[in-house]
Amino acid sequence: MKIIVDGMGGDEAPLHIVDGAVLAAKEFQDKNEPHQIVLTGPKEKILRRVHHCHGDALLGKYLEIVHTDEWIEMHESPVSALTKKTKSSMHLGMEMVKRGEADAFVSMGNTGAVMAVALMRLGRIEGVARPTIGAFFPSMNGRTLILDIGTNVDCKPNHLLQFALMGSVYVHAMYNIENPKVGLLSIGEEENKGDDLTVKSNELFREKKLFDFAGNVEGRDILNGTADVVICDGFVGNVVLKFGESVAGFLKSRFRSVAQKNFKYKLMMLLAKPALVGVFKDMDYQEYGGVPLLGVNGVVIIGHGSSSPKALNKAIHVAKEMVEKKINEVIREKIILS
Amino acid sequence: MKIIVDGMGGDEAPLHIVDGAVLAAKEFQDKNEPHQIVLTGPKEKILRRVHHCHGDALLGKYLEIVHTDEWIEMHESPVSALTKKTKSSMHLGMEMVKRGEADAFVSMGNTGAVMAVALMRLGRIEGVARPTIGAFFPSMNGRTLILDIGTNVDCKPNHLLQFALMGSVYVHAMYNIENPKVGLLSIGEEENKGDDLTVKSNELFREKKLFDFAGNVEGRDILNGTADVVICDGFVGNVVLKFGESVAGFLKSRFRSVAQKNFKYKLMMLLAKPALVGVFKDMDYQEYGGVPLLGVNGVVIIGHGSSSPKALNKAIHVAKEMVEKKINEVIREKIILS
Repeated sequence: MKIIVDGMGGDEAPLHIVDGAVLAAKEFQDKNEPHQIVLTGPKEKILRRVHHCHGDALLGKYLEIVHTDEWIEMHESPVSALTKKTKSSMHLGMEMVKRGEADAFVSMGNTGAVMAVALMRLGRIEGVARPTIGAFFPSMNGRTLILDIGTNVDCKPNHLLQFALMGSVYVHAMYNIENPKVGLLSIGEEENKGDDLTVKSNELFREKKLFDFAGNVEGRDILNGTADVVICDGFVGNVVLKFGESVAGFLKSRFRSVAQKNFKYKLMMLLAKPALVGVFKDMDYQEYGGVPLLGVNGVVIIGHGSSSPKALNKAIHVAKEMVEKKINEVIREKIILS
Repeated sequence: MKIIVDGMGGDEAPLHIVDGAVLAAKEFQDKNEPHQIVLTGPKEKILRRVHHCHGDALLGKYLEIVHTDEWIEMHESPVSALTKKTKSSMHLGMEMVKRGEADAFVSMGNTGAVMAVALMRLGRIEGVARPTIGAFFPSMNGRTLILDIGTNVDCKPNHLLQFALMGSVYVHAMYNIENPKVGLLSIGEEENKGDDLTVKSNELFREKKLFDFAGNVEGRDILNGTADVVICDGFVGNVVLKFGESVAGFLKSRFRSVAQKNFKYKLMMLLAKPALVGVFKDMDYQEYGGVPLLGVNGVVIIGHGSSSPKALNKAIHVAKEMVEKKINEVIREKIILS
């Protein structure tokens, strides 16, 4: 299998990206697995870093570099990504997947740009109205996949239905959950509670019976783990995601200010630090490596811009698994039947 | 001043409610302030509890009971609250405010019912399209008021504009903030980011210049304290509120499971417990006592159903301050001028 990694996507690119790719390539070598990582981006820069992390021996069989002069910056607009820089590390990588020269594409880059370029180069799976990106939240039972988290706003019930279908297929295949429970995010459990979109979507979900619909769930159910997949409009999903991401930082600052109050507290916090780190670890979205662009006609995994090499390595494994489990083929079949 | 307290509103009513009312009445007595708490509800039950917490001496001057046979249950629907039980402790209390026999009404009861009964009995401040309920979140700078948190879904830009105006007046008066910063919750800081509602609202906010508009804010800005007031549709607000309320419980369960891992961690957590309690204290929404129904033609404060006596006491003081500062009069003037 050949997995492309956008060598210039991410806040610390190419450093963390190359480090992560080398990590993954080494694992393939150690296990004697016939997979190859292809880094797209400025060859010189990337090679220098490969050398720096002693990855030279991997070049050729486990690691390859495809040179590009251009790359898309983290905060560039999707429109600019589409119209300018059409030879970027992102474009080139997607193009290789499109031509069948590679099996998957992984980027820690600009989410909006990845989605835009994927839509342009790879297109949608037949019948999918709007591809979607989700995020994993930690929960009492493990994790909850929230879809959509910002790619799609002003959704229609049919969009939410397709998000639910694709999310259910993904969680089933990747986490071996027999019938993933799908919840519709609303402001009351009763089916008539919510805004116009959720009331109509609830009706459609119940009518279509395409997945195990657990009914409406509320904001508290995300962390409580009431459902495996939680469906919402991308506006709501993005607000909750960003709120959730800010919780760890907020608590750390609280811990610090409590610790400063007196020496006894300071000592207690110092003593408790290793345990506290354990608590926050699960709140760290990097643990999941990356999430797929569901509905795109090709395997594309997107991760957080601030991903560590370890997170990129995980994302590469997510991509590999998604190819092996033929998740896009399953989605294609289910969408046709829906 | 006469402040009505719904004697049967709240999960632990009348117990916590009477306890809180007695607490407040004692404070009025101690400070020799000429204010009276009026508890509405079944006289026998309430008297028994007053007696239990040694409040008998307060009866007459500082504490009064107005008997009602009926009350609205915590999970009764607003429609049922309106059509049946029209002589409930809630109806009677609002009626007294309406007739000028009391200055404010405080309830820890069913939020939907309080809003419905308030709208029926007291009506709206002239020009207000939709009254709103907010919630306070803790933030790096103190607190953030989020409006709306579920009373109003499928909002129009003009609704959000009025929420912003009322929230700004409230925060200014209650927290002595000269020009409260008002943020519009969206999924990107640029004015063209968001869904149809926020893009149009951003335009309206900038055009009208009725308050200090800080532009779009994101989910992370709530805890970061970028704005004093954050405006959103009640659907989004409710999802974030319930998600936020579930964070403390989720972390407590994480702390427990980390502590169980080994004896060393257990000891660390035990040692750190007093400091951890300090961290969670600010996350406790009861600290704010209650929030006003903004836009209703009378002072109405609503608190959490699980409020402690201390929280009810705080809510009573919030009501008192809102009357003293004539907040509804200021809102009326500003709405007319808008």
